[in-house]
Amino acid sequence: MDEFALIRRLTGGRTGAEGPRGERVVVGIGDDAAVVAPTPGKHMVLTVDAMVEIVDFLPWTMDDESIGWKAMAQNVSDLAAMGAEPRYALVALAAPKGFPPERLARLYAGLYACADFYGVAVVGGDMSTSPERVSVTITAVGEVEPGRALLRSGARPGDAVFVTGPLGLSAAGLDWLLRREAPAEAWAPLVAAHQRPRPRPEAGRALVGLANALNDVSDGLASEAGEIAEASGARVVLDLAAIPVAPALADYAAFAGRDPLDFILSGGEDYELVGTVAPERAEELLAALREAGAEPAIIGFVEAGEPGAALRRPDGNIEPLGKRGYNHFG
Amino acid sequence: MDEFALIRRLTGGRTGAEGPRGERVVVGIGDDAAVVAPTPGKHMVLTVDAMVEIVDFLPWTMDDESIGWKAMAQNVSDLAAMGAEPRYALVALAAPKGFPPERLARLYAGLYACADFYGVAVVGGDMSTSPERVSVTITAVGEVEPGRALLRSGARPGDAVFVTGPLGLSAAGLDWLLRREAPAEAWAPLVAAHQRPRPRPEAGRALVGLANALNDVSDGLASEAGEIAEASGARVVLDLAAIPVAPALADYAAFAGRDPLDFILSGGEDYELVGTVAPERAEELLAALREAGAEPAIIGFVEAGEPGAALRRPDGNIEPLGKRGYNHFG
Repeated sequence: MDEFALIRRLTGGRTGAEGPRGERVVVGIGDDAAVVAPTPGKHMVLTVDAMVEIVDFLPWTMDDESIGWKAMAQNVSDLAAMGAEPRYALVALAAPKGFPPERLARLYAGLYACADFYGVAVVGGDMSTSPERVSVTITAVGEVEPGRALLRSGARPGDAVFVTGPLGLSAAGLDWLLRREAPAEAWAPLVAAHQRPRPRPEAGRALVGLANALNDVSDGLASEAGEIAEASGARVVLDLAAIPVAPALADYAAFAGRDPLDFILSGGEDYELVGTVAPERAEELLAALREAGAEPAIIGFVEAGEPGAALRRPDGNIEPLGKRGYNHFG
Repeated sequence: MDEFALIRRLTGGRTGAEGPRGERVVVGIGDDAAVVAPTPGKHMVLTVDAMVEIVDFLPWTMDDESIGWKAMAQNVSDLAAMGAEPRYALVALAAPKGFPPERLARLYAGLYACADFYGVAVVGGDMSTSPERVSVTITAVGEVEPGRALLRSGARPGDAVFVTGPLGLSAAGLDWLLRREAPAEAWAPLVAAHQRPRPRPEAGRALVGLANALNDVSDGLASEAGEIAEASGARVVLDLAAIPVAPALADYAAFAGRDPLDFILSGGEDYELVGTVAPERAEELLAALREAGAEPAIIGFVEAGEPGAALRRPDGNIEPLGKRGYNHFG
C-alpha cells in the first residue's frame, strides 16, 4: 500500500471539510496544505504536542485507540487552557516500516473519535516512517476573542485558586496498569481517566472574561500551580483540606498503600483546568463551570511573596512545593 | 538542565513576538498555546512536516544547522505551493535523553536562520524525549487571499507546464554526500542545494491569480507532475528537450556516469515550484516569476487523456512516467 492509499484508508476519505467546523474548511486533507477561513474578529490559537511510544506511553498501558484519543485530547486541553474554542487539527504520524496497518487504523479511529467529540476538523497531516517507535504529533488550532486568551501570568494576590474537577485519577490508573496485566473492574474509572481523558474546552470557554489565570493539568498539580505562580510573580497556596479527593482515587490509594495526594500533586494527564479568579467572582465562576459540565472546587489562594507553589497543611503550616510533575530532560 | 531552561537556551529567550510578523503575535512561546491575530480578510494556510533521523536524513549527510534549516524550509515550501505568505511556525522536537545540548543549539540556529530569512515567527513548540533518534516536526501557518489558494487540481487541457528553477541539484548533492566523506569544492552548489534548500514563497505569491495549478517539488518531478495530473483529471506531458539542466548537475551527472534526468525526475527536495498556466498568460507568468527572483522555464503542456504524467522524447514519442519520487511506505 503506498502512502496515499494508506492516508485514504486511515482518514476514510475524510478531508475535514465534511465534519464539524467543515463549513470553514476551504481546503482539507489532500493538497500541500490546508486552508481555513478564520472567524472574523477572532484570534487564532496554535499548539503542538507529541506523543512518543516508550517515552509518553508504554505499549502495555495504552491500546491503539487510546493512543489516538489521548494524542488529540492533550492538544484540545492546551486550547482549553487558553479559553479557546477547538477548531482544527493536523496529524503528523511516524511509524516503523512494517507497522501493522490495522494498528494504525485503530489509532486513527481513536483520534477521530476524540476530534468528533470535541468538534475538531482534522484538516491535514504528515505520514512518515520512523526507525523504531510510533509517534503522533498533533497541531491543534482554536479561536478566541481578541485580548481574552487566558494566560498563566494573570494571577493576582487575593485571587482564589480553582480546579475544574478531581485530579490524580489518571496517575492512579497508570499506577494500576503498571502493576497488573489487565484492569480490574474496580479500577476501570481510573484506567479510563488515564487512557481516554476528557479535557475541558467548554469549561475553558466559560472561563473567558471570568478567570484571571489558567493552566491545564497535564503535569501534576504542584507543577501547574508553580507555573502560574512563576508567570504571575506571586505565591500560589494550595489548601490541602480543600483539595477534592475522588472516592475512586481514595479507594485505590488505600489499596496501593499510597497517599492520594501524591497522585494529585505529582501525577499528571488529568487535563482538568486549574486557575485563579478574583474572590468576589468565585461564586459566579463555580456556577459557570457547573453549567459547563465541570465539578469545580476552590482549592487555595494567591498571595504576594516569593513566586512558587506552596501547600497549607490542616494545622496551618505552609510549606513550599517542589515541581513534582513529570519533567522531560529532568 | 530542565525542559524550560533548555527551551530558553534554544530560543535565546525569543517568544516570536519580537521577530518578523511579531506585530501580530499576541502570545508567543511560553504559555499553553500561541495566539496570533489573523490578517483581516485573509484565509489561514496550515501544514505540518516531520523530519526524522535515518529516515529523512543521515547524520553524515546533514550537519545540525542544515537539519534545522531544512525542516523549516520544507514547510515554507508547502506554503509557497499554495500561494500563501509564510507567517508563523511551531516546532516539535524529539531527541534522545543525553543528546548534546550544543547539537540542539546548532539545530535551532539553523531553524531560526531559515525562519528569519523567510519572515516566519516561531511562536510555539513542544520538546520531548525520543527513544533513539532526533526528529523535528514543524507546523507552518501562512495566509492567502480567500479563494485564491493554488491547488493541484486546477490544471486544464491546453495549459503550459512551468517550473520556477532548475531541478535535480539536491538529489545530485545527496548522491555525492553518500559517496564521499567530505564535499569537494566542485560540488559545493549541489551540496548546498541538498542541505540548505531555498523554497520559493515569493514566487508562490507572484503566482496567485496567475497559475492554474501548483505543487512544490519535494519529491521528484515525475511524482509531482503526476499529482497535478491526477488531481486535475488530465495528462501532464513533460517535454524532455525543454527541461532545464543546470550546468552543475550536467557536470556531476557526467562525473558520476548518470543521466541528469534521473536526478530531475526521481530526485526530490529541490523545493522549486511546478505548476500550470493558461497558454495566453505564460509570458506574463514567466515575467512575474523572474521579478520574484526565480529562473522559470516552460517544460511541457497539459492535455485531455488518462490522468498521469508522461514524458515526450525529442523524437516525438510520448511515454507514461511512473511515480519515481520517494514514496514512504512504498
